[in-house]
Amino acid sequence: MTGLDKIAECLQKARQVILSGHVMPDGDCLGSVAALGLGLMELGKQVTLASPDPLPELYQFLPGADRFLIGEEALKGTYDTFVVLDSSVPDRLGPLKELLVRDLVVCVIDHHVGNHDFGHFIYVDPKAAATGEIIQDLLDLLHVSSRVDIASCLYTAIVTDTGSFRYQNTTPLTHRRVARLMEEGVDAARLSVLLFEQKSLLHLRVLQAALQTLDFTSCGRVGWMSVTRETLDSLGAREEHTDGLIDYVRSLRGVEVALLFREIESGCWKVGFRSRGQVDVQQVASRFNGGGHLRAAGAVVRGEGEAVIKMVVRAVLEVMQGD
Amino acid sequence: MTGLDKIAECLQKARQVILSGHVMPDGDCLGSVAALGLGLMELGKQVTLASPDPLPELYQFLPGADRFLIGEEALKGTYDTFVVLDSSVPDRLGPLKELLVRDLVVCVIDHHVGNHDFGHFIYVDPKAAATGEIIQDLLDLLHVSSRVDIASCLYTAIVTDTGSFRYQNTTPLTHRRVARLMEEGVDAARLSVLLFEQKSLLHLRVLQAALQTLDFTSCGRVGWMSVTRETLDSLGAREEHTDGLIDYVRSLRGVEVALLFREIESGCWKVGFRSRGQVDVQQVASRFNGGGHLRAAGAVVRGEGEAVIKMVVRAVLEVMQGD
Repeated sequence: MTGLDKIAECLQKARQVILSGHVMPDGDCLGSVAALGLGLMELGKQVTLASPDPLPELYQFLPGADRFLIGEEALKGTYDTFVVLDSSVPDRLGPLKELLVRDLVVCVIDHHVGNHDFGHFIYVDPKAAATGEIIQDLLDLLHVSSRVDIASCLYTAIVTDTGSFRYQNTTPLTHRRVARLMEEGVDAARLSVLLFEQKSLLHLRVLQAALQTLDFTSCGRVGWMSVTRETLDSLGAREEHTDGLIDYVRSLRGVEVALLFREIESGCWKVGFRSRGQVDVQQVASRFNGGGHLRAAGAVVRGEGEAVIKMVVRAVLEVMQGD
Repeated sequence: MTGLDKIAECLQKARQVILSGHVMPDGDCLGSVAALGLGLMELGKQVTLASPDPLPELYQFLPGADRFLIGEEALKGTYDTFVVLDSSVPDRLGPLKELLVRDLVVCVIDHHVGNHDFGHFIYVDPKAAATGEIIQDLLDLLHVSSRVDIASCLYTAIVTDTGSFRYQNTTPLTHRRVARLMEEGVDAARLSVLLFEQKSLLHLRVLQAALQTLDFTSCGRVGWMSVTRETLDSLGAREEHTDGLIDYVRSLRGVEVALLFREIESGCWKVGFRSRGQVDVQQVASRFNGGGHLRAAGAVVRGEGEAVIKMVVRAVLEVMQGD
């Protein structure tokens, strides 16, 4: 593993930098890409912000959001350095994985536990609540001056990955970092409205449909909801309208493991896993070639809805029973 | 107004102290009463924690929760000092208002804007995000040592009154205070679970039913849901299971005023009003003899469901149009 100062050194030498987070981008990866990208622009680098998948509408407000190149579009350019953020395996880069076989210097910065066996410079800090926390330090090392747009990107990264400072990953340092971001001009209340109080009606319609599928194991410790392709299509909803659904299950008293089954295409289910911390859902997800961490994981499972649910729930119960 | 040091001085002299927050207690008033009360006990005072109304089930986990005397029960004791927390007018004390006419030293500590024209020592800081923030400083002045139970009470006060650090009242200092509380041993993730993730299944069932009633004015700026008595009864749900429902409407993009109609008994509707700040919903509620403030208000309206909704929505539109 590399020290963060080595990454800073590498970026100082770079000229044409492309930055990307993971497929199905979230606030941490987009905020981190935008913050570091804007910082590198200030240093006079030629910078390309990229994302394997389009930005969810929710994040269109992010400073720099309109500059992102999506998917293969980003492969056309010429770069000397590739910064991979918030991704522990190359597959998380979707089509941008192709950049890894080019003759580029690859820097990997992440806060997920994992092997991270790709890239030339690798910095991983699993104690960081968000990749955005690491980027804050990196920008300091790069002597990028305080700017409200960059601070807003970092705030977005941290507030989304900590669930508004509620998750276990939140540390005293997280709060001190956010204090500093607010002092740099972040309007936290405004960003909170943009991030948490601009739901589209489709979110509620999808929630309504999902609630009709809410079900539990007889012990009540495992709960789940599902959303079929047909439901999404009939509502005119997209996958992003299922974001956060799993939290409704996770927040129920007695539920230790929450599952969300989303049919991304006919017969192909994306399964989300959330745990309160007693059960390691990464272990369950890995049985289906998925990944994640103890409290949050995901996998893709093929099959007919009922059968997929039954199979995954059984796997959860097995892991719960220490099998 | 008194300096906080004068309040500390007064409390140092006190022997038999009773502390109370307001009617319909929330996390800030209960957390503040418990934190200061536990601190004063450490200083050897005889301390009575009181509340005009019973503690909601949600706050039973608070250190000291089992020591609270409720309503008139608290009037029986003998005290030399009365500490009033988080309350700007005597009426907020419910039956405990009676203590104000006794021969007691009355200290008032609050963060609400208001006159506060009662009490001998009055300290009000409207810039404090929560009364709990002021109590943190007061405990420092009293040289109460760091304790995880007290810190947990203060965390509860702050996290609830700032909506998990999302509301406008949150400052950089709020985050620094919380960093310190976490360093004093607060398990923020555990408290967040207790405060925000112990929903009962009935909450979701009521939500599901309410979502089926979601409706809007043609302009989309006013949205509402309703829950009939019949719905609650058929689900076996109580009024508390409708708590928070209005936030689903308020959080919708484009909605400026959110309404929730709850049939408390046949033909009698409790109407909740929430505004994003442009429209003064207190003005609307007052047309129905209700009250509240600019962003949150309530009223009770009698009549048949459809008619009540129509009438209230029309009133909102009239106030919106500056009528």
